[in-house]
Amino acid sequence: MAREEITVGIIGLGLMGGSSALKLKQQGFANRILGYDINSGHEEEALNLGIIDEIAGIDCICNEASLIVLAIPVNKALLVLPEVMKTLNPNAVVVDLGSTKQKIGELANSFPNSQQFVACHPLAGTENTGPSAAFPELFQDKVNIICDQETSSPNAIEMAINMTHALGMRTKFMNSKEHDRHIAYVSHLSHISSFMLGQTVLEVEKDEENIFDMAGSGFESTVRLAKSSPDMWAPIFTENADNILKVLDTYIKNLNSFRDLIKDGIESELNKSMTETNVIRKVLDRKLTPLTQPVVGR
Amino acid sequence: MAREEITVGIIGLGLMGGSSALKLKQQGFANRILGYDINSGHEEEALNLGIIDEIAGIDCICNEASLIVLAIPVNKALLVLPEVMKTLNPNAVVVDLGSTKQKIGELANSFPNSQQFVACHPLAGTENTGPSAAFPELFQDKVNIICDQETSSPNAIEMAINMTHALGMRTKFMNSKEHDRHIAYVSHLSHISSFMLGQTVLEVEKDEENIFDMAGSGFESTVRLAKSSPDMWAPIFTENADNILKVLDTYIKNLNSFRDLIKDGIESELNKSMTETNVIRKVLDRKLTPLTQPVVGR
Repeated sequence: MAREEITVGIIGLGLMGGSSALKLKQQGFANRILGYDINSGHEEEALNLGIIDEIAGIDCICNEASLIVLAIPVNKALLVLPEVMKTLNPNAVVVDLGSTKQKIGELANSFPNSQQFVACHPLAGTENTGPSAAFPELFQDKVNIICDQETSSPNAIEMAINMTHALGMRTKFMNSKEHDRHIAYVSHLSHISSFMLGQTVLEVEKDEENIFDMAGSGFESTVRLAKSSPDMWAPIFTENADNILKVLDTYIKNLNSFRDLIKDGIESELNKSMTETNVIRKVLDRKLTPLTQPVVGR
Repeated sequence: MAREEITVGIIGLGLMGGSSALKLKQQGFANRILGYDINSGHEEEALNLGIIDEIAGIDCICNEASLIVLAIPVNKALLVLPEVMKTLNPNAVVVDLGSTKQKIGELANSFPNSQQFVACHPLAGTENTGPSAAFPELFQDKVNIICDQETSSPNAIEMAINMTHALGMRTKFMNSKEHDRHIAYVSHLSHISSFMLGQTVLEVEKDEENIFDMAGSGFESTVRLAKSSPDMWAPIFTENADNILKVLDTYIKNLNSFRDLIKDGIESELNKSMTETNVIRKVLDRKLTPLTQPVVGR
Protein backbone atom coordinates (compact mmCIF):
# COMPACT_ATOMS: atom_id res chain seq x y z
CA MET A 1 0.00 0.00 0.00
CA ALA A 2 1.42 3.37 -0.99
CA ARG A 3 1.65 5.65 1.98
CA GLU A 4 3.18 9.00 2.69
CA GLU A 5 5.99 8.80 5.23
CA ILE A 6 5.18 10.76 8.30
CA THR A 7 6.60 12.37 11.41
CA VAL A 8 5.77 10.36 14.53
CA GLY A 9 6.05 11.76 18.05
CA ILE A 10 6.61 9.34 20.91
CA ILE A 11 5.80 10.47 24.44
CA GLY A 12 7.45 8.02 26.82
CA LEU A 13 10.65 6.35 25.59
CA GLY A 14 10.51 3.06 27.49
CA LEU A 15 9.93 -0.48 26.27
CA MET A 16 6.65 0.26 24.43
CA GLY A 17 7.45 3.72 23.07
CA GLY A 18 10.99 2.81 22.12
CA SER A 19 10.00 -0.43 20.40
CA SER A 20 7.23 1.38 18.48
CA ALA A 21 9.72 4.00 17.31
CA LEU A 22 12.23 1.41 16.12
CA LYS A 23 9.66 -0.65 14.23
CA LEU A 24 7.77 2.28 12.65
CA LYS A 25 11.06 3.67 11.35
CA GLN A 26 12.30 0.28 10.16
CA GLN A 27 9.03 -0.28 8.25
CA GLY A 28 9.19 3.11 6.56
CA PHE A 29 5.95 4.10 8.27
CA ALA A 30 7.74 7.04 9.90
CA ASN A 31 10.53 9.03 8.26
CA ARG A 32 11.18 11.16 11.35
CA ILE A 33 10.72 10.30 15.01
CA LEU A 34 10.44 12.98 17.68
CA GLY A 35 10.76 11.78 21.26
CA TYR A 36 9.90 13.09 24.69
CA ASP A 37 10.40 11.54 28.11
CA ILE A 38 9.97 13.04 31.56
CA ASN A 39 13.37 11.49 32.33
CA SER A 40 15.94 13.45 30.31
CA GLY A 41 18.45 10.63 30.78
CA HIS A 42 16.06 8.37 28.85
CA GLU A 43 15.76 11.01 26.10
CA GLU A 44 19.54 11.10 25.67
CA GLU A 45 19.71 7.32 25.76
CA ALA A 46 16.96 6.96 23.14
CA LEU A 47 18.77 9.44 20.90
CA ASN A 48 22.11 7.67 21.33
CA LEU A 49 20.53 4.29 20.62
CA GLY A 50 19.02 5.62 17.39
CA ILE A 51 15.48 5.07 18.67
CA ILE A 52 14.47 8.68 17.98
CA ASP A 53 15.81 11.29 15.56
CA GLU A 54 15.25 14.32 17.79
CA ILE A 55 14.40 15.12 21.38
CA ALA A 56 11.36 17.42 21.42
CA GLY A 57 8.96 19.00 23.88
CA ILE A 58 5.29 17.96 24.00
CA ASP A 59 4.26 21.25 22.37
CA CYS A 60 6.65 20.71 19.48
CA ILE A 61 5.45 17.10 19.06
CA CYS A 62 1.81 18.20 19.04
CA ASN A 63 2.63 20.78 16.39
CA GLU A 64 4.81 18.71 14.06
CA ALA A 65 3.83 15.06 14.33
CA SER A 66 1.06 13.41 12.27
CA LEU A 67 0.89 10.53 14.76
CA ILE A 68 1.48 10.99 18.48
CA VAL A 69 2.00 7.88 20.57
CA LEU A 70 1.39 8.10 24.32
CA ALA A 71 3.44 5.32 25.90
CA ILE A 72 3.52 6.20 29.60
CA PRO A 73 1.96 4.76 32.78
CA VAL A 74 -1.86 4.99 32.80
CA ASN A 75 -1.99 7.56 35.62
CA LYS A 76 0.55 9.76 33.82
CA ALA A 77 -1.39 9.44 30.56
CA LEU A 78 -4.43 10.94 32.30
CA LEU A 79 -2.28 13.96 33.24
CA VAL A 80 -0.55 14.41 29.89
CA LEU A 81 -3.50 13.79 27.56
CA PRO A 82 -5.23 17.16 28.25
CA GLU A 83 -2.04 19.02 27.32
CA VAL A 84 -1.81 17.00 24.11
CA MET A 85 -5.48 17.43 23.13
CA LYS A 86 -5.32 21.18 23.68
CA THR A 87 -2.22 21.77 21.56
CA LEU A 88 -2.81 19.10 18.90
CA ASN A 89 -2.61 20.18 15.27
CA PRO A 90 -5.95 19.54 13.52
CA ASN A 91 -4.62 16.81 11.21
CA ALA A 92 -2.80 14.77 13.83
CA VAL A 93 -3.88 11.50 15.42
CA VAL A 94 -3.15 10.55 19.05
CA VAL A 95 -3.00 6.94 20.21
CA ASP A 96 -2.31 5.76 23.73
CA LEU A 97 -0.92 2.31 24.49
CA GLY A 98 -1.92 1.86 28.14
CA SER A 99 -3.27 -1.31 29.74
CA THR A 100 -6.60 0.22 30.87
CA LYS A 101 -8.88 1.97 28.40
CA GLN A 102 -12.15 3.15 29.95
CA LYS A 103 -10.90 6.17 31.90
CA ILE A 104 -8.61 7.56 29.23
CA GLY A 105 -11.35 7.18 26.63
CA GLU A 106 -13.78 9.12 28.83
CA LEU A 107 -11.16 11.83 29.34
CA ALA A 108 -10.48 12.10 25.59
CA ASN A 109 -14.21 12.37 24.93
CA SER A 110 -14.35 15.50 27.08
CA PHE A 111 -12.35 17.41 24.44
CA PRO A 112 -13.95 18.88 21.31
CA ASN A 113 -11.33 17.23 19.08
CA SER A 114 -11.84 13.79 20.71
CA GLN A 115 -12.25 12.14 17.28
CA GLN A 116 -8.51 12.57 16.76
CA PHE A 117 -7.85 10.17 19.65
CA VAL A 118 -7.72 6.36 19.36
CA ALA A 119 -7.48 4.13 22.44
CA CYS A 120 -5.11 1.24 21.72
CA HIS A 121 -3.70 -1.61 23.75
CA PRO A 122 -0.94 -3.57 22.05
CA LEU A 123 -0.77 -6.90 23.91
CA ALA A 124 2.96 -7.21 24.01
CA GLY A 125 5.64 -6.58 26.55
CA THR A 126 8.57 -7.95 28.47
CA GLU A 127 9.56 -7.53 32.10
CA ASN A 128 12.22 -4.98 31.10
CA THR A 129 11.98 -1.19 31.12
CA GLY A 130 13.64 1.89 29.69
CA PRO A 131 14.97 2.71 26.20
CA SER A 132 17.60 -0.04 26.35
CA ALA A 133 14.80 -2.63 26.67
CA ALA A 134 13.26 -1.58 23.32
CA PHE A 135 13.49 -3.84 20.27
CA PRO A 136 11.58 -3.64 16.98
CA GLU A 137 10.17 -7.19 17.03
CA LEU A 138 8.35 -6.75 20.35
CA PHE A 139 4.94 -6.61 18.69
CA GLN A 140 5.37 -9.17 15.89
CA ASP A 141 2.27 -11.37 15.39
CA LYS A 142 0.64 -10.08 18.59
CA VAL A 143 -2.76 -8.38 18.90
CA ASN A 144 -3.48 -4.66 19.14
CA ILE A 145 -6.88 -3.91 20.65
CA ILE A 146 -8.57 -0.72 19.44
CA CYS A 147 -11.28 0.39 21.84
CA ASP A 148 -14.52 2.30 21.18
CA GLN A 149 -13.65 2.85 17.53
CA GLU A 150 -17.00 4.59 16.91
CA THR A 151 -15.78 7.56 18.96
CA SER A 152 -12.79 8.17 16.64
CA SER A 153 -12.86 9.62 13.13
CA PRO A 154 -12.45 7.21 10.18
CA ASN A 155 -9.14 8.91 9.39
CA ALA A 156 -7.89 8.39 12.92
CA ILE A 157 -8.94 4.72 12.89
CA GLU A 158 -7.22 4.25 9.54
CA MET A 159 -4.01 5.71 10.96
CA ALA A 160 -4.24 3.44 14.02
CA ILE A 161 -4.82 0.36 11.86
CA ASN A 162 -1.92 1.25 9.58
CA MET A 163 0.30 1.73 12.62
CA THR A 164 -0.86 -1.65 13.95
CA HIS A 165 0.03 -3.27 10.65
CA ALA A 166 3.43 -1.56 10.52
CA LEU A 167 4.12 -2.91 14.03
CA GLY A 168 3.43 -6.42 12.70
CA MET A 169 0.24 -6.87 14.71
CA ARG A 170 -3.35 -8.02 14.19
CA THR A 171 -6.17 -5.59 15.00
CA LYS A 172 -9.05 -6.47 17.32
CA PHE A 173 -11.90 -4.07 18.14
CA MET A 174 -13.44 -4.00 21.59
CA ASN A 175 -15.60 -1.89 23.82
CA SER A 176 -13.36 -0.22 26.44
CA LYS A 177 -15.46 -1.44 29.34
CA GLU A 178 -15.25 -5.02 28.05
CA HIS A 179 -11.54 -4.57 27.42
CA ASP A 180 -10.87 -3.57 31.00
CA ARG A 181 -12.83 -6.54 32.29
CA HIS A 182 -11.19 -9.15 30.03
CA ILE A 183 -7.68 -7.78 30.47
CA ALA A 184 -8.06 -7.94 34.26
CA TYR A 185 -8.77 -11.64 33.91
CA VAL A 186 -6.00 -12.52 31.52
CA SER A 187 -3.20 -10.02 32.13
CA HIS A 188 -3.61 -8.14 35.41
CA LEU A 189 -4.26 -11.28 37.47
CA SER A 190 -1.15 -12.92 35.97
CA HIS A 191 0.96 -10.01 37.15
CA ILE A 192 -0.48 -10.11 40.67
CA SER A 193 -0.03 -13.87 40.92
CA SER A 194 3.58 -13.50 39.79
CA PHE A 195 4.41 -10.56 42.07
CA MET A 196 2.98 -12.39 45.08
CA LEU A 197 4.85 -15.57 44.14
CA GLY A 198 8.10 -13.60 44.10
CA GLN A 199 7.28 -11.91 47.39
CA THR A 200 6.38 -15.22 49.04
CA VAL A 201 9.52 -17.04 47.93
CA LEU A 202 11.73 -14.11 49.01
CA GLU A 203 9.92 -14.21 52.37
CA VAL A 204 10.20 -17.92 53.14
CA GLU A 205 13.44 -18.81 51.33
CA LYS A 206 16.20 -16.87 53.04
CA ASP A 207 18.97 -18.49 51.02
CA GLU A 208 19.21 -16.69 47.66
CA GLU A 209 21.60 -19.39 46.44
CA ASN A 210 18.79 -21.91 46.73
CA ILE A 211 16.38 -19.68 44.80
CA PHE A 212 18.94 -19.29 42.05
CA ASP A 213 19.88 -22.96 41.90
CA MET A 214 16.27 -24.17 41.98
CA ALA A 215 14.77 -21.54 39.69
CA GLY A 216 14.88 -23.89 36.69
CA SER A 217 12.22 -26.05 38.32
CA GLY A 218 9.31 -23.83 37.22
CA PHE A 219 9.86 -20.75 39.34
CA GLU A 220 11.79 -18.73 36.78
CA SER A 221 9.05 -18.53 34.15
CA THR A 222 6.22 -18.15 36.66
CA VAL A 223 7.93 -15.30 38.50
CA ARG A 224 9.15 -13.45 35.39
CA LEU A 225 6.42 -10.81 35.55
CA ALA A 226 7.47 -9.91 39.12
CA LYS A 227 10.41 -8.08 37.53
CA SER A 228 7.94 -5.63 35.95
CA SER A 229 7.85 -1.92 36.71
CA PRO A 230 5.90 -0.93 39.87
CA ASP A 231 5.45 2.60 38.45
CA MET A 232 3.59 1.11 35.54
CA TRP A 233 1.61 -1.51 37.43
CA ALA A 234 0.45 0.18 40.66
CA PRO A 235 -1.72 2.68 38.71
CA ILE A 236 -3.17 -0.11 36.55
CA PHE A 237 -4.21 -2.08 39.63
CA THR A 238 -5.94 0.86 41.32
CA GLU A 239 -7.57 2.13 38.12
CA ASN A 240 -8.96 -1.30 37.24
CA ALA A 241 -9.68 -2.32 40.85
CA ASP A 242 -13.32 -3.39 40.39
CA ASN A 243 -12.55 -5.87 37.63
CA ILE A 244 -9.37 -7.09 39.31
CA LEU A 245 -10.98 -7.68 42.71
CA LYS A 246 -13.61 -9.92 41.15
CA VAL A 247 -11.09 -12.25 39.52
CA LEU A 248 -8.56 -12.01 42.35
CA ASP A 249 -11.19 -13.17 44.83
CA THR A 250 -11.97 -16.14 42.58
CA TYR A 251 -8.24 -16.92 42.40
CA ILE A 252 -7.88 -16.83 46.20
CA LYS A 253 -11.00 -18.99 46.58
CA ASN A 254 -9.56 -21.57 44.16
CA LEU A 255 -6.21 -21.58 45.97
CA ASN A 256 -7.99 -22.19 49.27
CA SER A 257 -9.95 -25.12 47.81
CA PHE A 258 -6.80 -26.64 46.32
CA ARG A 259 -5.01 -26.10 49.64
CA ASP A 260 -7.74 -28.07 51.44
CA LEU A 261 -7.43 -30.94 48.96
CA ILE A 262 -3.68 -31.07 49.62
CA LYS A 263 -4.22 -30.89 53.38
CA ASP A 264 -6.74 -33.76 53.24
CA GLY A 265 -4.56 -35.74 50.81
CA ILE A 266 -7.35 -36.20 48.27
CA GLU A 267 -5.11 -37.07 45.36
CA SER A 268 -7.95 -38.03 43.00
CA GLU A 269 -9.59 -34.60 43.36
CA LEU A 270 -6.26 -32.82 42.89
CA ASN A 271 -5.74 -34.85 39.75
CA LYS A 272 -9.27 -34.05 38.51
CA SER A 273 -8.81 -30.32 39.11
CA MET A 274 -5.50 -30.21 37.25
CA THR A 275 -6.80 -32.37 34.40
CA GLU A 276 -9.64 -29.90 33.87
CA THR A 277 -7.17 -27.03 33.84
CA ASN A 278 -4.94 -28.82 31.32
CA VAL A 279 -7.56 -27.65 28.77
CA ILE A 280 -5.64 -24.36 28.77
CA ARG A 281 -3.09 -26.07 26.49
CA LYS A 282 -5.72 -26.50 23.80
CA VAL A 283 -6.78 -22.86 24.15
CA LEU A 284 -3.25 -21.50 23.94
CA ASP A 285 -1.72 -23.84 21.38
CA ARG A 286 -3.96 -22.82 18.51
CA LYS A 287 -1.74 -22.00 15.61
CA LEU A 288 -1.91 -18.70 13.77
CA THR A 289 -0.51 -18.11 10.34
CA PRO A 290 2.21 -15.46 10.62
CA LEU A 291 0.96 -12.15 9.31
CA THR A 292 1.71 -10.97 5.82
CA GLN A 293 -1.48 -8.95 5.45
CA PRO A 294 -3.29 -6.91 8.06
CA VAL A 295 -6.04 -8.90 9.70
CA VAL A 296 -8.93 -7.01 11.17
CA GLY A 297 -11.18 -8.96 13.51
CA ARG A 298 -14.10 -8.10 15.70
CA MET B 1 38.04 -38.47 31.60
CA ALA B 2 38.38 -42.02 30.25
CA ARG B 3 35.33 -44.04 31.10
CA GLU B 4 33.99 -47.43 30.16
CA GLU B 5 30.79 -47.23 28.15
CA ILE B 6 27.95 -48.84 29.97
CA THR B 7 24.46 -50.23 29.64
CA VAL B 8 21.85 -47.90 31.08
CA GLY B 9 18.31 -48.96 31.94
CA ILE B 10 15.59 -46.34 31.96
CA ILE B 11 12.36 -47.05 33.84
CA GLY B 12 9.79 -44.52 32.66
CA LEU B 13 10.18 -43.22 29.09
CA GLY B 14 8.63 -39.75 29.42
CA LEU B 15 10.22 -36.31 29.28
CA MET B 16 12.85 -36.96 31.97
CA GLY B 17 13.67 -40.58 31.19
CA GLY B 18 13.63 -40.04 27.43
CA SER B 19 15.80 -36.93 27.59
CA SER B 20 18.30 -38.70 29.88
CA ALA B 21 18.51 -41.60 27.44
CA LEU B 22 19.11 -39.33 24.45
CA LYS B 23 21.81 -37.29 26.17
CA LEU B 24 23.64 -40.19 27.84
CA LYS B 25 23.85 -41.96 24.49
CA GLN B 26 24.89 -38.81 22.62
CA GLN B 27 27.68 -38.18 25.16
CA GLY B 28 29.01 -41.72 24.89
CA PHE B 29 28.22 -42.29 28.55
CA ALA B 30 25.94 -45.19 27.58
CA ASN B 31 26.57 -47.52 24.68
CA ARG B 32 23.30 -49.40 25.12
CA ILE B 33 19.99 -48.17 26.48
CA LEU B 34 17.33 -50.54 27.76
CA GLY B 35 13.90 -49.02 28.33
CA TYR B 36 10.77 -49.94 30.24
CA ASP B 37 7.47 -48.11 30.55
CA ILE B 38 4.17 -49.23 32.07
CA ASN B 39 2.59 -47.88 28.87
CA SER B 40 3.66 -50.21 26.06
CA GLY B 41 2.71 -47.56 23.50
CA HIS B 42 5.39 -45.33 25.02
CA GLU B 43 7.90 -48.18 24.83
CA GLU B 44 7.23 -48.60 21.10
CA GLU B 45 7.36 -44.85 20.57
CA ALA B 46 10.68 -44.53 22.43
CA LEU B 47 12.13 -47.36 20.36
CA ASN B 48 10.90 -45.83 17.09
CA LEU B 49 12.26 -42.41 18.05
CA GLY B 50 15.69 -43.93 18.74
CA ILE B 51 15.51 -42.97 22.42
CA ILE B 52 16.19 -46.55 23.54
CA ASP B 53 17.95 -49.47 21.87
CA GLU B 54 15.77 -52.20 23.33
CA ILE B 55 12.52 -52.60 25.22
CA ALA B 56 13.19 -54.64 28.35
CA GLY B 57 11.40 -55.80 31.50
CA ILE B 58 12.40 -54.48 34.93
CA ASP B 59 14.03 -57.83 35.78
CA CYS B 60 16.14 -57.75 32.64
CA ILE B 61 17.15 -54.11 33.31
CA CYS B 62 18.13 -54.95 36.91
CA ASN B 63 20.22 -57.79 35.65
CA GLU B 64 22.00 -56.14 32.72
CA ALA B 65 22.28 -52.40 33.37
CA SER B 66 25.14 -50.76 35.27
CA LEU B 67 23.01 -47.67 35.84
CA ILE B 68 19.25 -47.82 36.35
CA VAL B 69 17.33 -44.56 36.12
CA LEU B 70 13.90 -44.37 37.77
CA ALA B 71 12.00 -41.62 35.96
CA ILE B 72 8.37 -42.14 37.00
CA PRO B 73 5.88 -40.28 39.22
CA VAL B 74 6.92 -40.22 42.89
CA ASN B 75 4.08 -42.48 44.06
CA LYS B 76 4.93 -45.03 41.35
CA ALA B 77 8.61 -44.87 42.29
CA LEU B 78 7.71 -45.97 45.81
CA LEU B 79 5.98 -49.03 44.33
CA VAL B 80 8.68 -49.95 41.79
CA LEU B 81 11.80 -49.33 43.91
CA PRO B 82 11.37 -52.46 46.09
CA GLU B 83 11.23 -54.66 42.97
CA VAL B 84 14.37 -52.97 41.65
CA MET B 85 16.33 -53.21 44.94
CA LYS B 86 15.50 -56.88 45.32
CA THR B 87 16.60 -57.92 41.83
CA LEU B 88 19.51 -55.50 41.37
CA ASN B 89 22.85 -56.92 40.28
CA PRO B 90 25.53 -56.22 42.93
CA ASN B 91 27.54 -53.81 40.74
CA ALA B 92 24.65 -51.68 39.53
CA VAL B 93 23.67 -48.20 40.68
CA VAL B 94 20.05 -46.96 40.89
CA VAL B 95 19.16 -43.29 40.71
CA ASP B 96 15.69 -41.83 40.92
CA LEU B 97 14.80 -38.44 39.44
CA GLY B 98 11.63 -37.56 41.34
CA SER B 99 10.71 -34.16 42.75
CA THR B 100 10.47 -35.31 46.40
CA LYS B 101 13.34 -37.11 48.09
CA GLN B 102 12.71 -37.88 51.75
CA LYS B 103 10.27 -40.79 51.41
CA ILE B 104 12.08 -42.61 48.63
CA GLY B 105 15.37 -42.25 50.50
CA GLU B 106 13.81 -43.79 53.60
CA LEU B 107 12.39 -46.63 51.52
CA ALA B 108 15.77 -47.30 49.87
CA ASN B 109 17.44 -47.36 53.26
CA SER B 110 15.21 -50.24 54.33
CA PHE B 111 17.03 -52.53 51.86
CA PRO B 112 20.37 -54.19 52.66
CA ASN B 113 21.88 -52.94 49.38
CA SER B 114 20.72 -49.34 49.98
CA GLN B 115 24.21 -48.01 49.25
CA GLN B 116 23.63 -48.79 45.58
CA PHE B 117 20.84 -46.18 45.51
CA VAL B 118 21.35 -42.43 44.91
CA ALA B 119 18.49 -39.94 45.32
CA CYS B 120 18.72 -37.32 42.57
CA HIS B 121 16.57 -34.40 41.48
CA PRO B 122 17.55 -32.82 38.18
CA LEU B 123 15.96 -29.35 38.21
CA ALA B 124 14.84 -29.32 34.63
CA GLY B 125 11.61 -29.91 32.83
CA THR B 126 9.04 -28.60 30.42
CA GLU B 127 5.26 -28.74 30.52
CA ASN B 128 5.28 -31.56 27.97
CA THR B 129 5.04 -35.29 28.58
CA GLY B 130 5.71 -38.62 26.90
CA PRO B 131 8.62 -39.88 24.76
CA SER B 132 7.93 -37.34 22.01
CA ALA B 133 8.60 -34.51 24.51
CA ALA B 134 12.16 -35.76 25.16
CA PHE B 135 15.18 -33.83 23.87
CA PRO B 136 18.86 -34.21 24.80
CA GLU B 137 19.47 -30.57 25.81
CA LEU B 138 16.76 -30.53 28.51
CA PHE B 139 19.32 -30.59 31.32
CA GLN B 140 22.04 -28.35 29.88
CA ASP B 141 23.58 -25.98 32.48
CA LYS B 142 20.89 -26.83 35.05
CA VAL B 143 21.42 -28.22 38.57
CA ASN B 144 21.14 -31.84 39.69
CA ILE B 145 20.60 -32.18 43.44
CA ILE B 146 22.02 -35.33 45.03
CA CYS B 147 20.42 -36.00 48.41
CA ASP B 148 21.82 -37.72 51.50
CA GLN B 149 25.02 -38.69 49.72
CA GLU B 150 26.44 -40.22 52.93
CA THR B 151 23.92 -43.06 52.62
CA SER B 152 25.28 -44.12 49.20
CA SER B 153 28.55 -45.87 48.44
CA PRO B 154 31.43 -43.80 46.99
CA ASN B 155 31.11 -45.82 43.76
CA ALA B 156 27.41 -45.05 43.51
CA ILE B 157 28.01 -41.32 44.12
CA GLU B 158 30.75 -41.30 41.50
CA MET B 159 28.38 -42.88 38.98
CA ALA B 160 25.67 -40.31 39.82
CA ILE B 161 28.14 -37.41 39.46
CA ASN B 162 29.41 -38.74 36.14
CA MET B 163 25.85 -39.11 34.92
CA THR B 164 25.14 -35.52 36.05
CA HIS B 165 28.15 -34.29 34.11
CA ALA B 166 27.18 -36.25 31.01
CA LEU B 167 23.74 -34.65 31.19
CA GLY B 168 25.46 -31.23 31.12
CA MET B 169 24.49 -30.35 34.69
CA ARG B 170 26.08 -29.00 37.87
CA THR B 171 25.92 -31.12 41.02
CA LYS B 172 24.59 -29.80 44.33
CA PHE B 173 24.44 -31.88 47.52
CA MET B 174 21.58 -31.50 49.96
CA ASN B 175 19.91 -33.22 52.86
CA SER B 176 16.65 -34.80 51.60
CA LYS B 177 14.55 -33.13 54.29
CA GLU B 178 15.97 -29.72 53.37
CA HIS B 179 15.51 -30.51 49.69
CA ASP B 180 11.81 -31.21 50.13
CA ARG B 181 11.37 -27.97 52.06
CA HIS B 182 13.24 -25.74 49.60
CA ILE B 183 11.72 -27.33 46.51
CA ALA B 184 8.21 -26.76 47.92
CA TYR B 185 9.03 -23.06 48.12
CA VAL B 186 10.58 -22.64 44.73
CA SER B 187 9.03 -25.26 42.47
CA HIS B 188 5.88 -26.78 43.96
CA LEU B 189 4.31 -23.42 44.83
CA SER B 190 4.98 -22.17 41.28
CA HIS B 191 3.03 -25.10 39.88
CA ILE B 192 0.09 -24.54 42.23
CA SER B 193 -0.01 -20.81 41.48
CA SER B 194 0.02 -21.56 37.76
CA PHE B 195 -2.61 -24.32 37.89
CA MET B 196 -4.96 -22.09 39.91
CA LEU B 197 -4.34 -19.17 37.54
CA GLY B 198 -5.36 -21.36 34.62
CA GLN B 199 -8.41 -22.66 36.50
CA THR B 200 -9.49 -19.15 37.46
CA VAL B 201 -9.19 -17.69 33.99
CA LEU B 202 -11.06 -20.64 32.47
CA GLU B 203 -13.75 -20.09 35.13
CA VAL B 204 -14.29 -16.33 34.69
CA GLU B 205 -13.43 -15.88 31.00
CA LYS B 206 -15.99 -17.84 29.03
CA ASP B 207 -14.71 -16.64 25.66
CA GLU B 208 -11.70 -18.77 24.70
CA GLU B 209 -11.04 -16.40 21.79
CA ASN B 210 -10.31 -13.65 24.31
CA ILE B 211 -7.96 -15.89 26.29
CA PHE B 212 -6.08 -16.74 23.14
CA ASP B 213 -5.93 -13.17 21.84
CA MET B 214 -4.88 -11.70 25.17
CA ALA B 215 -2.46 -14.44 26.23
CA GLY B 216 0.56 -12.43 25.08
CA SER B 217 -0.08 -9.93 27.86
CA GLY B 218 1.61 -12.00 30.56
CA PHE B 219 -0.80 -14.90 30.91
CA GLU B 220 0.95 -17.29 28.56
CA SER B 221 4.22 -17.55 30.48
CA THR B 222 2.59 -17.48 33.90
CA VAL B 223 0.14 -20.26 33.08
CA ARG B 224 2.63 -22.47 31.23
CA LEU B 225 3.07 -24.88 34.14
CA ALA B 226 -0.71 -25.48 34.21
CA LYS B 227 -0.15 -27.69 31.16
CA SER B 228 1.88 -30.09 33.33
CA SER B 229 0.91 -33.70 33.99
CA PRO B 230 -1.62 -34.23 36.83
CA ASP B 231 -0.40 -37.83 37.21
CA MET B 232 3.03 -36.49 38.03
CA TRP B 233 1.97 -33.55 40.21
CA ALA B 234 -0.91 -34.83 42.37
CA PRO B 235 1.38 -37.35 44.14
CA ILE B 236 4.07 -34.68 44.66
CA PHE B 237 1.56 -32.33 46.31
CA THR B 238 0.22 -34.95 48.71
CA GLU B 239 3.65 -36.42 49.52
CA ASN B 240 5.15 -33.00 50.28
CA ALA B 241 1.98 -31.57 51.82
CA ASP B 242 3.53 -30.28 55.08
CA ASN B 243 6.12 -28.13 53.33
CA ILE B 244 3.70 -27.00 50.63
CA LEU B 245 0.96 -25.96 53.06
CA LYS B 246 3.36 -23.70 54.91
CA VAL B 247 4.37 -21.73 51.82
CA LEU B 248 0.93 -21.88 50.22
CA ASP B 249 -0.61 -20.30 53.31
CA THR B 250 1.97 -17.50 53.11
CA TYR B 251 1.15 -17.03 49.43
CA ILE B 252 -2.60 -16.78 50.15
CA LYS B 253 -1.90 -14.37 53.02
CA ASN B 254 0.19 -12.14 50.72
CA LEU B 255 -2.49 -12.21 48.02
CA ASN B 256 -5.09 -11.14 50.57
CA SER B 257 -2.92 -8.23 51.75
CA PHE B 258 -2.28 -7.10 48.19
CA ARG B 259 -5.99 -7.43 47.45
CA ASP B 260 -6.80 -5.12 50.36
CA LEU B 261 -4.29 -2.52 49.09
CA ILE B 262 -5.98 -2.61 45.68
CA LYS B 263 -9.42 -2.37 47.27
CA ASP B 264 -8.36 0.63 49.35
CA GLY B 265 -6.53 2.19 46.40
CA ILE B 266 -3.27 2.61 48.32
CA GLU B 267 -1.04 3.01 45.28
CA SER B 268 2.09 3.94 47.25
CA GLU B 269 1.96 0.69 49.25
CA LEU B 270 1.32 -1.36 46.12
CA ASN B 271 4.32 0.31 44.55
CA LYS B 272 6.46 -0.36 47.64
CA SER B 273 5.45 -4.05 47.76
CA MET B 274 6.29 -4.57 44.08
CA THR B 275 9.55 -2.61 44.32
CA GLU B 276 10.69 -4.92 47.13
CA THR B 277 9.79 -7.95 45.03
CA ASN B 278 11.71 -6.58 42.03
CA VAL B 279 14.80 -7.83 43.95
CA ILE B 280 14.00 -11.20 42.42
CA ARG B 281 15.59 -9.94 39.20
CA LYS B 282 18.95 -9.60 40.91
CA VAL B 283 18.62 -13.07 42.40
CA LEU B 284 17.71 -14.70 39.08
CA ASP B 285 19.89 -12.75 36.69
CA ARG B 286 23.20 -13.88 38.14
CA LYS B 287 25.26 -15.14 35.28
CA LEU B 288 26.81 -18.57 35.27
CA THR B 289 29.66 -19.60 33.06
CA PRO B 290 28.41 -22.41 30.80
CA LEU B 291 29.79 -25.71 31.96
CA THR B 292 32.81 -27.29 30.40
CA GLN B 293 33.93 -29.10 33.55
CA PRO B 294 31.80 -30.70 36.23
CA VAL B 295 31.17 -28.30 39.10
CA VAL B 296 30.49 -29.80 42.48
CA GLY B 297 29.01 -27.48 45.08
CA ARG B 298 27.63 -27.89 48.52
